[in-house]
This record gives sequence, structure tokens and C-alpha cells, in this order.
Amino acid sequence: MGLIGGSYAKALRRLGVKKIIGVDTDGKVLRQAQEQAVIDEALCGAGPGLQAADVVICSVYPASTLDFVKSAVPFLKSDVLITDATGIKGSLPEDVQRLLTGRMEFIAGHPMAGRQGSGLGMSQAEIFDGANYIVVPAAFNSSGAIEWLSSFAGAIGCGQVVQVDAVEHDRIIAYTSNLPHALAVALINSASYNENTKYFIAGSFRDGTRVADINPYLWSDLFLANRENVLQELAAFSQQLERWREALTVADAQALQEMMREAAVKRKDLY
Amino acid sequence: MGLIGGSYAKALRRLGVKKIIGVDTDGKVLRQAQEQAVIDEALCGAGPGLQAADVVICSVYPASTLDFVKSAVPFLKSDVLITDATGIKGSLPEDVQRLLTGRMEFIAGHPMAGRQGSGLGMSQAEIFDGANYIVVPAAFNSSGAIEWLSSFAGAIGCGQVVQVDAVEHDRIIAYTSNLPHALAVALINSASYNENTKYFIAGSFRDGTRVADINPYLWSDLFLANRENVLQELAAFSQQLERWREALTVADAQALQEMMREAAVKRKDLY
Repeated sequence: MGLIGGSYAKALRRLGVKKIIGVDTDGKVLRQAQEQAVIDEALCGAGPGLQAADVVICSVYPASTLDFVKSAVPFLKSDVLITDATGIKGSLPEDVQRLLTGRMEFIAGHPMAGRQGSGLGMSQAEIFDGANYIVVPAAFNSSGAIEWLSSFAGAIGCGQVVQVDAVEHDRIIAYTSNLPHALAVALINSASYNENTKYFIAGSFRDGTRVADINPYLWSDLFLANRENVLQELAAFSQQLERWREALTVADAQALQEMMREAAVKRKDLY
Repeated sequence: MGLIGGSYAKALRRLGVKKIIGVDTDGKVLRQAQEQAVIDEALCGAGPGLQAADVVICSVYPASTLDFVKSAVPFLKSDVLITDATGIKGSLPEDVQRLLTGRMEFIAGHPMAGRQGSGLGMSQAEIFDGANYIVVPAAFNSSGAIEWLSSFAGAIGCGQVVQVDAVEHDRIIAYTSNLPHALAVALINSASYNENTKYFIAGSFRDGTRVADINPYLWSDLFLANRENVLQELAAFSQQLERWREALTVADAQALQEMMREAAVKRKDLY
């Protein structure tokens, strides 16, 4: 029932889902979620209450998904569908599926959505609106599960839904998500930052550092789970910085303009 | 009468200024500005029409300010106040002042405001609302001119107004403006970008590349006018990327979390 789990619950509520069970180890958060009618029932961990679930959405730290599923399996319906919201997949799909029994199935995926900060208080259904949703099927997945997650993504408000395998997923996300977060942190951590910086910034610095305020525990997990890919992206990015360094060193206006023209075309194409 | 000049004219209109004279070499743009009542009079270059101006705001490419002022001086009031909107100052203040006669005075400054794209069509008074405005006094400036520009900035809607000398200004702007623009261009120009990238992006990539679509001619001027400082900022930024590379290489969760905690504190402090 954190930022992402809370947002799922609110989106499910908006969708008119009959029964939403919130699971969290923090009783205070569960009471809050119930008082705000975000959830119908509260569970402080795996237990018999999970028997009622047709679908389980794991929105926990990447390292905790396996532990939670392991503890939940004895209580789950024999044909339950489990999905997650983890930004890096690695061997998670196979690892989770291996824990399951009967006709239980795990189908991996996640929205390309988030917010600064953390916790139920920051959650909102609107984070899904128009966001990309990535479905990450594994060899063991049924077409039914893949289709279900794709249509679920649309139902909670997401825009484009794409499918990609786990290896390719993690490689792409290193560029489109991990790298921009690292750059934002690096930009604001520069030795040039000081207490007067704020009087000299405009939109470019504001936007470039927006995601510099992220949950360090969640994100160190994500970065480490994908570190080989992220290191490659840092190298590819550094090659671009080297283009800048060279063009500036020799005062090459043509080269600078060429980089900016290339970027402008790509940026327009994004939308 | 481009993006910035047009925005000044619209902000002056909003403020209720009596007479706004637009100057541009492009007759079509001038007609447009007049039809839209953005300006009251149009001049296709320096000429007797400038005699009416109490204040002149030069919103041209950095390299063109001197040429325009040189051609305008014979027509200007003997106590005219001239200011600019140039993002990099260098020796511009002294160079312009040297061209002036009588009690004419040049006071440098600019808003920390802008938009993607270029041209009158993209201009709007609202770009100033709440933006920082930097006043860059030189040794020759009168306190009257400095005070005038500061209160003018507030009148057109800007928030915080700060004063800093030209050398310090350019050093700071290399970090707070030039660097974020270079990073945005570098991020989208990475070899990892391809036609499917758009399906895997979220807010972090969107924000990190927002200013990747900029006017290449204007910005190559700005970057080259400030290249020593920008090169230093690229070096300082690369040191941060090196921290990332080292932490990821040895899978140091503590180091990653420390960088993110440091960034989160700074980011919160910006607002």
C-alpha cells in the first residue's frame, strides 16, 4: 500500500472493482487506506484472507516479491493470477513461477508511471492515465494471462501497451528510465551546486532534476538489479558528452548545431 | 519579434504600456505582430521611429546585439535605457556601452525563461510569470538603471530578481542552464535511442529531454560564447557519473543510496 500499490488500489476503485484487499506490514497505513475507502479489507501479511483474491498485484520492493509470494502461496486460489509492478525483471518471472502450485500463473509487467516521494499519501489513480504499460511475458505464460494483463492496463487508464521479453526489457529500461534518474541525481550533486543555485535556474534545470528526489532504497535495488545494462548506458551517454567536449574544445559551431538538430528531430518524434 | 521579443511585447501589453514598437528584419512577422495587436508600430530595422523609445530591449541572437545597437544609436533618445535578453554576457555590457553617446546607458540582464521552438507564434507573456530574472550590472551602470531593470522584471511578472556581475553570471549559467540543455541533447542522441524508445518512456525521460528541442543557431552561439565555463561543467558532471560508475561496478548499495539521499535533500531545497 505504498505509492504504487496505493495507486493501483485507487485505480481499481475508480474502475468499480468489487473487492479490493490491501496487504501491508504497516498497520497504520492499512487503517488509513481503509478509512479513506481505498481498500475494502486489510491484511497485515499473507493469510487466509488472500483466498478471496482472483488477482494479486505485488507492489513491493524488487527484493521482496519472492518472499511475499512464497508466504502467500498456501493461501491463494489454485488458479490465481499474480502480477507485479517491478521496474527490472531479470529472472524474477521464472523465480516466482517456480514457487507456484496448481494452475497459478505469474505474468510480469509494470506501468511506466511513478511520482517523486513514496507512500500511500502520494498515491493517486491518475498516475496511470495515458502512461505506457509494459507486459513482460515469459515462455511459460498462457496467452490468456498475457491478454488479461494487457486489457487490465487499458482498463486502469494506461495508453500504449507493449510486450517485450525480460532480457530486452531490462536493456531498454536501463536507457529510458534508469539513466535519466542517474543523470538527474548527478546534475544536482555536481560540485557546482550551492545555496544560491535556486536563483539562477529555469525550466531546464527544474526538469533535469525533477526525478532527483527518489526513494533511495527502492532505487538502489533497481539499479543494482540492472547494473550491467546501466553501466553500458552510462558509457553510451559518456560518448555523447565526449562529442560535446570535442565540439566545444575546438569551437565547432557546425558540430554543435548538428547535435542539436539531431536531438530536435528525435524529440519531436517522441510525441 | 521572435520567441523572447514577442513575449516581452505581450508582457508589456498586459502591463498596459502606452506604446510598443516592434523591430524585426522580417516584414511578415511584423505584420503578424501588428495584426495581433502585440505591437503598436513596426520598424524593419534601425530608423527615425526609434526616437520615440524610452527603453530598448534587444532580443536578438547574442552576436547581433552589437550590430543592432551600432545602427540604432544615431536615432535614439540621448537618455535612452537599453537592456538585453542574452543568456551569456561576456564583455557584451562594456562593448555595447562603448557604442553609446550622451547619457545613453546599457544595463544587461535576462529572464530565466524560455520555451522550446522559436518565433513570434511561440511567444507568450506567461513565460515571465514567477521566473527568476538576473540583473547583470557593470562598473559603469548607474543605480537608477539597476533599480529600473529590477522593478521592470517584477512588473512583467517575474519572481525573484538577483544581481550578479558578468563573470560570475556566465560561470553560474554554464551550470544552471547550458549544462542541462547539453545533457538533454546528449540523452536523446545516445546510440541506444531507436524508433521503439517512445513506448518505454515515462516522466523521467520526457522531462530529461524536454529542452532537447532548441534553436540550434541561437544555442550554438550561447554555448560557444561560454565554452570555457561549459567545459568545466561537463568535467564536474562527469565526476558525478564516475561516482555512479564506481558504485555500480562494485555493486555498492550504500554509495548509491548516499548519492540519492544527497540529491533528494538538494532537490527539496530548490523550492
